[in-house]
Amino acid sequence: MLTKNQIKLIHSLRQKKFRISQKMFIVEGVKVVGEFLNSKYELVEIFSSDEEYSWCGPNFTEVSSKELSKISNFTAANKVLAIFKIPNPLPVDWTGLVLALDSVNDPGNLGTIIRLCDWFGINDLVCNESTVDCYNSKVVQSSMGSHSRVNINYLQLESVLVGLKPCFGTFMEGKSVYDQKLPKKGVIVLGNEANGISDGIEALVNIRLSIPRFGPDKKTESLNVANAAAIILSEFKRNSTEK
Amino acid sequence: MLTKNQIKLIHSLRQKKFRISQKMFIVEGVKVVGEFLNSKYELVEIFSSDEEYSWCGPNFTEVSSKELSKISNFTAANKVLAIFKIPNPLPVDWTGLVLALDSVNDPGNLGTIIRLCDWFGINDLVCNESTVDCYNSKVVQSSMGSHSRVNINYLQLESVLVGLKPCFGTFMEGKSVYDQKLPKKGVIVLGNEANGISDGIEALVNIRLSIPRFGPDKKTESLNVANAAAIILSEFKRNSTEK
Repeated sequence: MLTKNQIKLIHSLRQKKFRISQKMFIVEGVKVVGEFLNSKYELVEIFSSDEEYSWCGPNFTEVSSKELSKISNFTAANKVLAIFKIPNPLPVDWTGLVLALDSVNDPGNLGTIIRLCDWFGINDLVCNESTVDCYNSKVVQSSMGSHSRVNINYLQLESVLVGLKPCFGTFMEGKSVYDQKLPKKGVIVLGNEANGISDGIEALVNIRLSIPRFGPDKKTESLNVANAAAIILSEFKRNSTEK
Repeated sequence: MLTKNQIKLIHSLRQKKFRISQKMFIVEGVKVVGEFLNSKYELVEIFSSDEEYSWCGPNFTEVSSKELSKISNFTAANKVLAIFKIPNPLPVDWTGLVLALDSVNDPGNLGTIIRLCDWFGINDLVCNESTVDCYNSKVVQSSMGSHSRVNINYLQLESVLVGLKPCFGTFMEGKSVYDQKLPKKGVIVLGNEANGISDGIEALVNIRLSIPRFGPDKKTESLNVANAAAIILSEFKRNSTEK
């Protein structure tokens, strides 16, 4: 049975301000909850219609499917919902390859980018404060559990990037990423879905990259930011495998 | 003013069976409608609260914002909605580089893949019948107008791919796409979000590719199919730019 306080807590955690004040966030679905249970994240409470989770001990509350659908964000409620503690991120290791996001708005894009960082072994993702919160439910769902393997900091990019070189950014008129020698260390900045990299941060970029466009018309306006991240990270990493 | 028949038609076009029988589909939003108006697609009707579209002549119906929100699929209704004819696709040009999709389900993924085809100059996209309909509203929105520059056919992949070589497919244990010589012609198959490429189609693939995974843990289960498409298409195209 769900208590009123539990329902209230879960609903409040849909909002960023309560996630920040409570230092907790919500994860749903067997697969993604499993990823977080197998990580260093600290479980607060877990709610399921399935006794399978009873190994979680006193943190486990058995609930009916009907109760679950009341607290779920999914239209077709999943069989498990869990609350985890938001950990304090580690300091950024600026001596490695760091991905920095300037005002990425779409939760699906951020989730996919976290998954890409995990895939390509990028340990540090740095977001400016106007990037969507990485503990937003939709971000958590689309990252598919990769959160637990990527260190995410929210920082003032305009300050922290000062003097850091090389600092790469993607632009329509940059140098082809296929022709540029890409190092194993440095910062890669990706910008907002509609407006790209903001002026203040653009001023800190010292190497301007672009992803070449093919085809006769070349009318496609831009690539989705998560696809741009996929191609750019792949290029940086394939370089490191070259003999 | 909207007539009852117009409202009925628009609502019916949210369903695939009516799009097929009527050979029409819906586009919303200034940017994407603009892309289709500037293409070879034939306009059937256009509804807007803005007189700007009156140049469309008898196809234009001025409607109030309230009427528009009734027929819109968006929560925040956009200022224009248009109906276009679904054209007959051209036959596939199998002598070029063709992308084939095996049961891609998510409309956002298909839309993004169409946008990627446009970006990388892939003229032909071939989908099997269980891939989501490319005239689904969400696909149209996320392709951002790239539909008009990519030729999309729905075909029985198991039949049409027989004997076509080279036929590339992506698998977790394929050969690194970074090490494989990639030709300018051939077929690239991408599979379903959860299950990958089905057995029947896998049997027709003669070169198995994979996207290398980095990082110490290598726990990330898979890349999103649109991100995999981005990296694979970029690799095929970067090869063609090499001296």
